Order: sequence, then C-alpha cells, then structure tokens
Amino acid sequence: MDLELIRSLVVPNTTKLVLLSLDGLGGLPHPDTGKSELETARIPNLHALAARSACGLLRHVAPGITPGSGPGHLGLFGYDPLRYQVGRGILEALGIDFELRAGDVAARGNFCSVDRSGRITDRRAGRISTDLCVTLCQRLRAIRVPGAKLFVEPVKEHRFVLVLRRTGLSGKLSETDPQALGVPPPPVRALAPAARRTATLVNRFVAAARAVLSREVPANMVLLRGFDQLRRLPSFPKIFALKAAAIAAYPMYRGLARLVGMEVLKTGATFADEVATLHQHREAYDFFFLHYKDTDKAGEDGDFAAKVAALERLDAFIPEILTLKPDVLVVTGDHATPAVLKAHGWQPVPVLLWSAFCGADAVTLFTERACAAGSLGVFPAQQLMPLILANGLRLSKFGA
Amino acid sequence: MDLELIRSLVVPNTTKLVLLSLDGLGGLPHPDTGKSELETARIPNLHALAARSACGLLRHVAPGITPGSGPGHLGLFGYDPLRYQVGRGILEALGIDFELRAGDVAARGNFCSVDRSGRITDRRAGRISTDLCVTLCQRLRAIRVPGAKLFVEPVKEHRFVLVLRRTGLSGKLSETDPQALGVPPPPVRALAPAARRTATLVNRFVAAARAVLSREVPANMVLLRGFDQLRRLPSFPKIFALKAAAIAAYPMYRGLARLVGMEVLKTGATFADEVATLHQHREAYDFFFLHYKDTDKAGEDGDFAAKVAALERLDAFIPEILTLKPDVLVVTGDHATPAVLKAHGWQPVPVLLWSAFCGADAVTLFTERACAAGSLGVFPAQQLMPLILANGLRLSKFGA
Repeated sequence: MDLELIRSLVVPNTTKLVLLSLDGLGGLPHPDTGKSELETARIPNLHALAARSACGLLRHVAPGITPGSGPGHLGLFGYDPLRYQVGRGILEALGIDFELRAGDVAARGNFCSVDRSGRITDRRAGRISTDLCVTLCQRLRAIRVPGAKLFVEPVKEHRFVLVLRRTGLSGKLSETDPQALGVPPPPVRALAPAARRTATLVNRFVAAARAVLSREVPANMVLLRGFDQLRRLPSFPKIFALKAAAIAAYPMYRGLARLVGMEVLKTGATFADEVATLHQHREAYDFFFLHYKDTDKAGEDGDFAAKVAALERLDAFIPEILTLKPDVLVVTGDHATPAVLKAHGWQPVPVLLWSAFCGADAVTLFTERACAAGSLGVFPAQQLMPLILANGLRLSKFGA
Repeated sequence: MDLELIRSLVVPNTTKLVLLSLDGLGGLPHPDTGKSELETARIPNLHALAARSACGLLRHVAPGITPGSGPGHLGLFGYDPLRYQVGRGILEALGIDFELRAGDVAARGNFCSVDRSGRITDRRAGRISTDLCVTLCQRLRAIRVPGAKLFVEPVKEHRFVLVLRRTGLSGKLSETDPQALGVPPPPVRALAPAARRTATLVNRFVAAARAVLSREVPANMVLLRGFDQLRRLPSFPKIFALKAAAIAAYPMYRGLARLVGMEVLKTGATFADEVATLHQHREAYDFFFLHYKDTDKAGEDGDFAAKVAALERLDAFIPEILTLKPDVLVVTGDHATPAVLKAHGWQPVPVLLWSAFCGADAVTLFTERACAAGSLGVFPAQQLMPLILANGLRLSKFGA
C-alpha cells in the first residue's frame, strides 16, 4: 500500500486521532520471574483500554531487524522505513532541534586531539566540557567556504554537528574519523561523482578548522562522520489530510515529526507538561503524536524496575488523556528496548487501537504475549496510519 | 529486506545457531479424530521447548502455494524463493550428490522404448532395473559432443541425470518428452536465442544416444525434461558471516545446502548419526542446518500413524540436541506434507525459536493451531534467518 494510494482514499472529517508512542515499549521477561516489564507493571488503565481495543504487535522494519529511532518513528508515521532512511548526521542535528531543510548535508563531529605531525592522540579530546564545546563551535562558525552556508552546533562534551546548506550537495561522503589513534584524520572522499563538490567544501572546512584550533589544548582538531543528506519526505499532513501536531519533550522526536511536516508544539520537560499541551491544543489539530521517553531510557540502562515504574507512571495519565475524548486512541512504541538487552531490540511491539469501530478482540491485557493473539495480528508499523485513519472514518472505500 | 541489507547489518559473534528442519513438518487433522499429526503425537520435549520459545507459522512462498523442496529450503536459508529458483534438472542432480558448478545445465532423463519408426511405446522402458540403468549410463558416457563436457548419472530404475558443462550454456530449452505414446520424441528447441547452441549440443547427444542404444530392449531411447541452469547464488556464509555446516542424510538436502555455500558434513544414514555429527563438529562451526527426513516420507505415503511415529522419534532427540547448548535453536520445516494429502501442502508450517532473548509467548504446544497464536505471527520463511541472527546477537541496529 503506497502513500499515494492512501492519499487518494482520504476524506475529510473532524475526528480527533491520538497516537501515543511509549519509546522502547516492548520488553522481554526478567530471568527471575519469567515476566516482562509490561507483565510486571501495575497498569490497570492500559489493561482496561486493551480490553476495549483491537490489539496486535507492530513490526517496524522486518523480523529480526532492530530499528533505530529514525526507522522506528518513520514506520509509526506511515512511511516504509526501508524506503525512507534517515542517516546519523541528520538524526544528530534533529536531536539538537536544528531546523534542517531538504538538501542539507549534516555530519556528526567530534573535537579530538592531534600531535604536532597531525596524528590523532585522543578521538574525544579528553571529553571536553560542554561549555568549552560551545566556545569552540562559536570560533568554528567564523569559517567561510565559498558558495555554502555552514552551521556548527554544539551537542554535548566533545560532540558537535556540522551542517552544510547550498543547492547540489550530496551526503555520499567517506568519514574523517579513522576510529584509531596514531594516524592523521583522512580527508573526506566523494563516494559518488555527485559528491565531489561537497567533498571539496568539507575538506576546506576541516583545513580551516585545524588552523582555527591549532593553539587549543586538547581540542585542536575535528573528526567528522555519519554524513547524510536530508531528503524531502512526502508530507504527513498532505498525504493523510490531517492538521497534525507533535508533542515531545525530547528534541530528536520533535525533529522526526518536523521532518514529515507535523507542527511541533511547545511543551515542557515532563510528560505531565505534554498532556497539558495536548489538552490546550485539542481544538486546533486533528492528529496528535504524543511521545513518552522514560520507558526507553530505563530499558537502555538495563534497569528493569525503572522501566516497570516508567510504565506505571504513564498508566496513571491514561484517564486524563481519555478525558480529551479522542475518536481514535492508539498506544504503541517505536521499537522494543528490553531491559535485559540494555539496547533497542528486534522484538515486535504491542499496539492497542481504541475507537468506536475498532472491533475489540479477546485481548484483555496490554502485554507482549496477550497482544500476540489480538485481531490486528503482527503487522508492519507503516500500516498503522491507514488503520488509524479508517477508525477515524477518514478513508473512503478502495475500488467500486 | 534484501540480502545486501542484512549483510550490511551483520556483526561477528561466537554464538551457536542451530536450525532443525523436519521435512514436511506441517500436517492436517485426521478425519476420524480432528487432530493433526503434531496434535496426535506424544512430543513432550517439543511442547516444553515451544513453551520457552517464540512461536509462529512459516509461509515459504505465498498463501496457497505449495513449495517444492527447492523453494522450501531456499526460504529457510534466507533466500526469496520467488527470486532464486532451482529447476527440476538441477534438483535431480543435487539429489544424487552430483557436484554441480555454476553455469551447468542439468536435465532429468528417462530411458524409454520406441518402435522401429521411433514412436514412443513406453515412456519408462518398463521401469528397467537400477542395475541396467547404471550399465546404460556407462555406455552413454562414451558420447562426445564438441566443446562441452557431458555427465550421465544413473538415478533409479529408468531415471538418470544429464549434465552439460561449458561456458555460455543456457537452460532455456523445451523438453523431448511429449508425455504421450505413439509419437516420436521431438528435438529440443531453444526457448531463447541464447539457448540455441545448447539446443544443438543436446540434440547431438540425443541422436548419439539413440545410436548407442539402438539394439537395447526395452530401453532403446532417452527422454529429457526439466532443463535448468545452475545460477550462482549469493553465499550464505558471506551474507550472514557464519561458518555454516549442513548435516543431512539425504543427498538432495546436502545439495541444496552446498548450493548456497554451506559446508556439508559427512554423516551416516540415520538421524542419530546426524546428531552425533552435530556434536562432533560443535566447535568448528557457528551455524548448523540439521535435516530430518522421516516426517516427509510418512506424509508422502499418506501414512498418518507413521508420521506421528516419526515426530515421536524426533522428539526423543531434542534433549540430546539441547546438551549442545546452542544460543539459538529453531525447529521448523521446509513445507507441510499432511498425510491426508499424501503430498506437499500449502499450509503454513509451525516454527519455534528458542534463545535467551526470544521473548517466549503464550504458546505451550508445538502444533499448527497453537503456533498460529504465537508472537512471531505468520511470516515468510526468508525472514527466519535474520531473526535467528538477531537472537544470536549477530545483527546491528538498522538506522540511527
């Protein structure tokens, strides 16, 4: 089912659609109890909602494939994550709320240390402070390369983002980080003929950066990797004919929503702030993407109990979200982050879809095991948006 | 998900992966009991393993499509069976352990009887003995055609295999078996311009064979069908970065494993021999493909009780396989062979996947009906290998 086909079926309506994504939702059983995070948590509101919903499992890329945050979210937003890929440099820029434009080339940067003959002695320049990173980025902003706009943005400690903006750029570039000590950073090479001019521009920037930083200790050089160009993605609001808003406390998720053309609403640092923002803007939008981060953080830390607690905190907000009276409410995640893996996982992720027309199945628990037997089955994440639209009575019949 | 993408995500590890294929595993209920072979058999070890595993159903080609042994196995090995096809001539050559090379053209041959004017009177020459077949094949080996190597290999009774080896051959050839009596075998025709030279070579062989066999009774002529050329397949060990070994008592399955580049281990005629071979070579390989034939044979014979008994015999080996301490153990099949069909079937085939990270689902029985509710869902066979790799912690994240 491609996006153009969906677009051709979309009809206007005034229904309210809410997609709540619990980052890293899916888990795995704790070895001691045999129960997953969802099976361990006291989440009566989610279980009750599952009982009134159609349930299933979402697979974001393919069986066995662990999605990064980019593919995880693009799948939820209805895009085939294998077709629409977002590279590391782009994600890093999104992660600091940088307003990328289509055609921009972005790379992840490190400040590093080199000896007098230019050989790397520390790939992270002793993890300099974020304050120093900010200062050094300001100095690098003085660099000019002909015909392109440069942006140098601090991230954290030794990390920064480099963005190039002009027409005709390409992100098909090799990295200048040899991932080794005792050798000089190699120049950027064009990996395709169309990238030759971009390679020249980047190498000029690197040479200028070396000169600017020559007297700095320890951060006297830069390394660049993860070059990628921001492709123009089909517009989410246009394809689905939705006034769409994203509410996320973390910049990367705001950035991913902005990539597909959602409006990003100002909100605070907590999920309570996000829910308040949702209520404030109820009338102005048709579709809300609401992001909850704590589940993923706890999973990445390998902290099973913290992930259970994060689920329980989230569960307490469900009644407040329901007072919004959405026509469709979906609760799912962008990928699994099982605490036992301490990382993103490839496991399919529970999904519940509530609407007046969802056809509640026999599933009464919002857990991996229970949802496996739901009426939605195990299905690709990019098929969720059409299902949400259908339940919001926003899709017409296909064929006569 | 194509193979190149998987290859780009593979990371090295030392985990041990075991794929146990019960040939023709899937079944259908017996009309008297309403229970399938798996539901009838006493298979406590498989059920216990299913309870600790993620379960599902494998579909090898598409709904309603009955897989032959070629597509059944290529799917299990991670190849899209619609994209990578293996023809009958190739399969027949693999079935006698003939060491085919990429570019070889193979055909199935029959000795047949023709009358004085060359019209077929018996397409199988009265099913001559295998001994006579061997003798006649030796005589046919004296035939020379310019520029190509010929191999004539006996199979069983009236059946043999013809293999042509030279550069620039093509398998796009019509058959010489009219599947009718009273007509002479037609010459081979090229079905594509690139096959013209091959057609000429084959027709020379057929003319020479008729001369060599002219005084034989009843096998005085040959029929050729199922021409196919062996394509070079992407290498399983390279794509998945695995030292891969196949253990199979039957030659066709050894041949299919060799086709994709697995090492084929010497083993005996029984499954007990295969399991002993597995243990002997535990340290030398990362991945083992272990093949069990009895289930398929019983199904093809339409012998429900024999298939049940074959499942029970296999079940008794599970503890011995587990003492190998694999990191990932998968039990599934290459296709269904329901006894009530007496043939391969199109039904999806149960699969269980055990690993420390599999996320055991609610399925506690290794049966068609129970596995349908498993967390793996119903999924294409070629997606099993990525799942096995993921569970063996051999795949990195897709996308940042």
